Amino acid sequence: MTRILVINPNSSAAVTAAIDQAVARLRVPGGPVIEVAGLAEGPPGIATQRDADSTVMPLVRWVERDGADAFVLACFSDPGLVAVKEAAGGRPVMGIAEWGILRAMTRGERFGIIALSPASVRRQQRYVRQMGVDARYAGSWPVDASAADSAGEAVRQRMIEAGQALVRQRGADVLVLGCAGMASHREPIEAATGVPVIEPSQQAVAAAMAAIWLQD
Amino acid sequence: MTRILVINPNSSAAVTAAIDQAVARLRVPGGPVIEVAGLAEGPPGIATQRDADSTVMPLVRWVERDGADAFVLACFSDPGLVAVKEAAGGRPVMGIAEWGILRAMTRGERFGIIALSPASVRRQQRYVRQMGVDARYAGSWPVDASAADSAGEAVRQRMIEAGQALVRQRGADVLVLGCAGMASHREPIEAATGVPVIEPSQQAVAAAMAAIWLQD
Amino acid sequence: MTRILVINPNSSAAVTAAIDQAVARLRVPGGPVIEVAGLAEGPPGIATQRDADSTVMPLVRWVERDGADAFVLACFSDPGLVAVKEAAGGRPVMGIAEWGILRAMTRGERFGIIALSPASVRRQQRYVRQMGVDARYAGSWPVDASAADSAGEAVRQRMIEAGQALVRQRGADVLVLGCAGMASHREPIEAATGVPVIEPSQQAVAAAMAAIWLQD
Amino acid sequence: MTRILVINPNSSAAVTAAIDQAVARLRVPGGPVIEVAGLAEGPPGIATQRDADSTVMPLVRWVERDGADAFVLACFSDPGLVAVKEAAGGRPVMGIAEWGILRAMTRGERFGIIALSPASVRRQQRYVRQMGVDARYAGSWPVDASAADSAGEAVRQRMIEAGQALVRQRGADVLVLGCAGMASHREPIEAATGVPVIEPSQQAVAAAMAAIWLQD
Amino acid sequence: MTRILVINPNSSAAVTAAIDQAVARLRVPGGPVIEVAGLAEGPPGIATQRDADSTVMPLVRWVERDGADAFVLACFSDPGLVAVKEAAGGRPVMGIAEWGILRAMTRGERFGIIALSPASVRRQQRYVRQMGVDARYAGSWPVDASAADSAGEAVRQRMIEAGQALVRQRGADVLVLGCAGMASHREPIEAATGVPVIEPSQQAVAAAMAAIWLQD
Amino acid sequence: MTRILVINPNSSAAVTAAIDQAVARLRVPGGPVIEVAGLAEGPPGIATQRDADSTVMPLVRWVERDGADAFVLACFSDPGLVAVKEAAGGRPVMGIAEWGILRAMTRGERFGIIALSPASVRRQQRYVRQMGVDARYAGSWPVDASAADSAGEAVRQRMIEAGQALVRQRGADVLVLGCAGMASHREPIEAATGVPVIEPSQQAVAAAMAAIWLQD
Repeated sequence: MTRILVINPNSSAAVTAAIDQAVARLRVPGGPVIEVAGLAEGPPGIATQRDADSTVMPLVRWVERDGADAFVLACFSDPGLVAVKEAAGGRPVMGIAEWGILRAMTRGERFGIIALSPASVRRQQRYVRQMGVDARYAGSWPVDASAADSAGEAVRQRMIEAGQALVRQRGADVLVLGCAGMASHREPIEAATGVPVIEPSQQAVAAAMAAIWLQD
Repeated sequence: MTRILVINPNSSAAVTAAIDQAVARLRVPGGPVIEVAGLAEGPPGIATQRDADSTVMPLVRWVERDGADAFVLACFSDPGLVAVKEAAGGRPVMGIAEWGILRAMTRGERFGIIALSPASVRRQQRYVRQMGVDARYAGSWPVDASAADSAGEAVRQRMIEAGQALVRQRGADVLVLGCAGMASHREPIEAATGVPVIEPSQQAVAAAMAAIWLQD
Repeated sequence: MTRILVINPNSSAAVTAAIDQAVARLRVPGGPVIEVAGLAEGPPGIATQRDADSTVMPLVRWVERDGADAFVLACFSDPGLVAVKEAAGGRPVMGIAEWGILRAMTRGERFGIIALSPASVRRQQRYVRQMGVDARYAGSWPVDASAADSAGEAVRQRMIEAGQALVRQRGADVLVLGCAGMASHREPIEAATGVPVIEPSQQAVAAAMAAIWLQD
Repeated sequence: MTRILVINPNSSAAVTAAIDQAVARLRVPGGPVIEVAGLAEGPPGIATQRDADSTVMPLVRWVERDGADAFVLACFSDPGLVAVKEAAGGRPVMGIAEWGILRAMTRGERFGIIALSPASVRRQQRYVRQMGVDARYAGSWPVDASAADSAGEAVRQRMIEAGQALVRQRGADVLVLGCAGMASHREPIEAATGVPVIEPSQQAVAAAMAAIWLQD
Repeated sequence: MTRILVINPNSSAAVTAAIDQAVARLRVPGGPVIEVAGLAEGPPGIATQRDADSTVMPLVRWVERDGADAFVLACFSDPGLVAVKEAAGGRPVMGIAEWGILRAMTRGERFGIIALSPASVRRQQRYVRQMGVDARYAGSWPVDASAADSAGEAVRQRMIEAGQALVRQRGADVLVLGCAGMASHREPIEAATGVPVIEPSQQAVAAAMAAIWLQD
Repeated sequence: MTRILVINPNSSAAVTAAIDQAVARLRVPGGPVIEVAGLAEGPPGIATQRDADSTVMPLVRWVERDGADAFVLACFSDPGLVAVKEAAGGRPVMGIAEWGILRAMTRGERFGIIALSPASVRRQQRYVRQMGVDARYAGSWPVDASAADSAGEAVRQRMIEAGQALVRQRGADVLVLGCAGMASHREPIEAATGVPVIEPSQQAVAAAMAAIWLQD
């Protein structure tokens, strides 16, 4: 029996629960066990770059000692993705930002990202450039929420407005949810904006399943 | 029971068989049926742009009339990908070039493509630019083979040499097989070059499975 | 006596007539005959990607059997441009999108395209990336018209507004007409926006004339 | 009777003669007069950036006082192109580098430039980036010749070798002659390399003819 | 005693004075003498490309005959930067646009430039592309002022509005003053927009000091 | 009296000493104190991404508690640059990779980086893309040395060969030393390759001095 460990690098139980629910559809008969767990020593949410960076070494150590067959880093900053890959000794490690963005590139010409905050926007700008996919990037739009807030109902309307701004003002034709906690809002935003909305944890877990089956 | 239809746009039975074998690992218990079929009216191989373009309308019509839950276009030119998506009425359609390249972007910094011919190289250059991922592209290297040849043993050594040239002279640190018929050579090339080698049909079928499960 | 065949890939007589009138200025004494003809089996207009792709093989076959000295594909999707070049056996083949865009790059820093529809916008985004000239592209703006409509007076005001939006909101300083049928609106849009407006069929035919004279 | 003034910004009579011969095919019956003249006060060749810059104000003043209908700046540095356009008061001004490169983009996927010297190479790198077409640029290769030398037979073999290096080592599939004096070598280099070779003065003059006829 | 010569390529005493004041903070004990001088034969301001180009040869000649240890060209067009470097015979030459932009890239993700006029905007677009840093460029916004005006109080409010437009509408998170005369407005614009504002003459002079000390 | 703290994030005394010597020229009378210190808990060298990431939180904490006026992170991975900037509370923080690369962009058209190892090469590829300056990047070439080795004489010849490969095979016309420990080799490599060689710690310290004086 193979197992995918999905790590929420923050300590918010609400976010961990949101991820768990988002990936439930991928718990198919005969498929790998999909375990979702939060990083107890992580910050309550990844707001600053320091928050993101503070999780890297704990993630590295967790992956090193955990026997899972594949890993998903379920924070849209993909914190420590390269270092964690080094630690995983050849086992697949998937970042949700990476996979959310790549999947979006197959559903539209220009993707926009619904971001938590202006600091997240700048982090995403750096990451999109690092990925080398700037030519497909319509931009990010902040909703001024924390990761924990992002799972709640109160933020949904702001997310819809952010999505509409990305579509109308920035020319996005596909959206990516820029936080693992936002998963429950995918369908309402899709309905309100009329464009596909990508939930990134789902994409990364699906990619981990494929990597296990394909042994690549 | 859901079903993925993988269409080889050429009429080469050797290539269709190679694809069928490549995706066998994804026929998991409880997963979708994965059916691989060749386009009877397709050319023997996709050598010229005309070959590629000649398959588009037959592919469109096939997808329109076939009740599959998702489709994979299993030619590295991704012929007619956008038109076929229009015809699929919201059902997922995956191109193997698109998914082979995107997966490669998660396994290395610069991907190289082992191509059939100089004409394929130019087609790939156009497609990589169209995808907007030129910053990650080390280049393509032709082996001067037809699609049908590509499944045979005779071409393997030339593919290894092409892979080595891409790594040493072009700075690739991950390779993509640039034809669906090349699947059986993945592991030997990986062994000979020391870098990951991506088999694109596998990636596209895995993506189709995910899209079915996630209904996105 | 040399001859350029300008093919309108759609079957709209209004569009064919608009092209014929647009290129009239290039019928210079001693110059090549410039023949403009519509593709009888083409769709009434190129709205979807399927529309565009459906014209490719008919265009390939026409060019193969026609003895013209050079060809112009007069649809802003440049449908089948590479395949038609293969079929032309070394005779020049010019796409109007390609030449309209290249000429615009000599008249301003950032070109905008007046597009028929949102689907055209996405097709143009793909094509501009494929051409590798994204750094010069201010964007496309749709007027929600069919190709046949585009030749009429009713659409002119919407085209002017699209041009103004591209200049003011997207920073364009030169505009390209994104449909061969729009030719008659060039001067009014230029007057209303204050920036150069490029009629692409004219540019492609002029390029074909040069290629004939230069034998390159 | 309309007239195009082609200005060679250097004072080399050999280069002026080479340009004159190159554009002779464009002296068609009923077409504009094509006058080719050298800048008497120009340097013997454009080797340094200072050489290029030293010609700008003389070119500006010449264009201001000359009544020609269109102008071509026949030096591959396109010296002063923007300032000369300002001085031309709306009359077309074409740079040969600009048009040589744009035409090359319609004949292949990646263009290489045969350059006079390492300093020319760097100037071309800057210009290609400024044009925003870097994604199509295979590179430049110097032949270590002066502009005046470039018209002679002695340099031809070095130009062929440069072209072959661009094709084989840099992946060019179309070449541009990087000096107006190189025109007579176009066909031999084409024969030796097997890829199209673009003579840029021809392209710029053809573009000027089109601009006159189209009044754009 | 080493000396840096800062040349204002226009003849506006107000601009020269603004530069002199801006760089005063860099006149540190034991540091190089920083001399600021205007080009007497320069135009009153650099409005057109012709204005910019007209200063190049005078700058070249000045630098050639002046014994300074390093030079700064204090016009945001960096006129003749490469030719002046050739003339300086290995002594450092710094352009203020170049250094203002590079410094901005260390203070934010996307820089915007407050420009004098639409013509300056286009010049900046070309220069940013030439520098190859387009991926970091949010755009330029004109205030419709001359260089001499730019030092005065009257233009400050328009500069603040331009800065706010770049931040809010173009997504800039750092601003560069696009004229050497604007130096006195740096802090008020920073206060009003909430993002860092770079004064480019300061950056170029500091870079010249470093080059002297490091002898590189 | 102001003070710049230059932190070598690894624990190699040889590298710390090399940095100290490299920046000695910038200890000018009346200038800031330039203190160079190693991170005692850092790894012996930054070889893997994990090495780099392991230094981030120690650097953040050091900067937070240290009263220096400006900081330089003297490892070519610029580890934790953004997080350290957050921790510095507005005081300038300079990364040596960032400043070495930016300075190189003013000395040539295409910079190459002499790297320690293949893993460094990939890290540099990511960072150059993240900076958005890929269009100016000729590539990196590894010398297969550790950071501590890099300060010794034994590696100099391999660095010269790497520099020559970057110039001849990759078209670099300026080189950057890709490790703080390589400082003593700058001049010999410059002599051997004939192109400028940038020592990055010097550039970052000079930039920190400027930031202190300019209070920006």
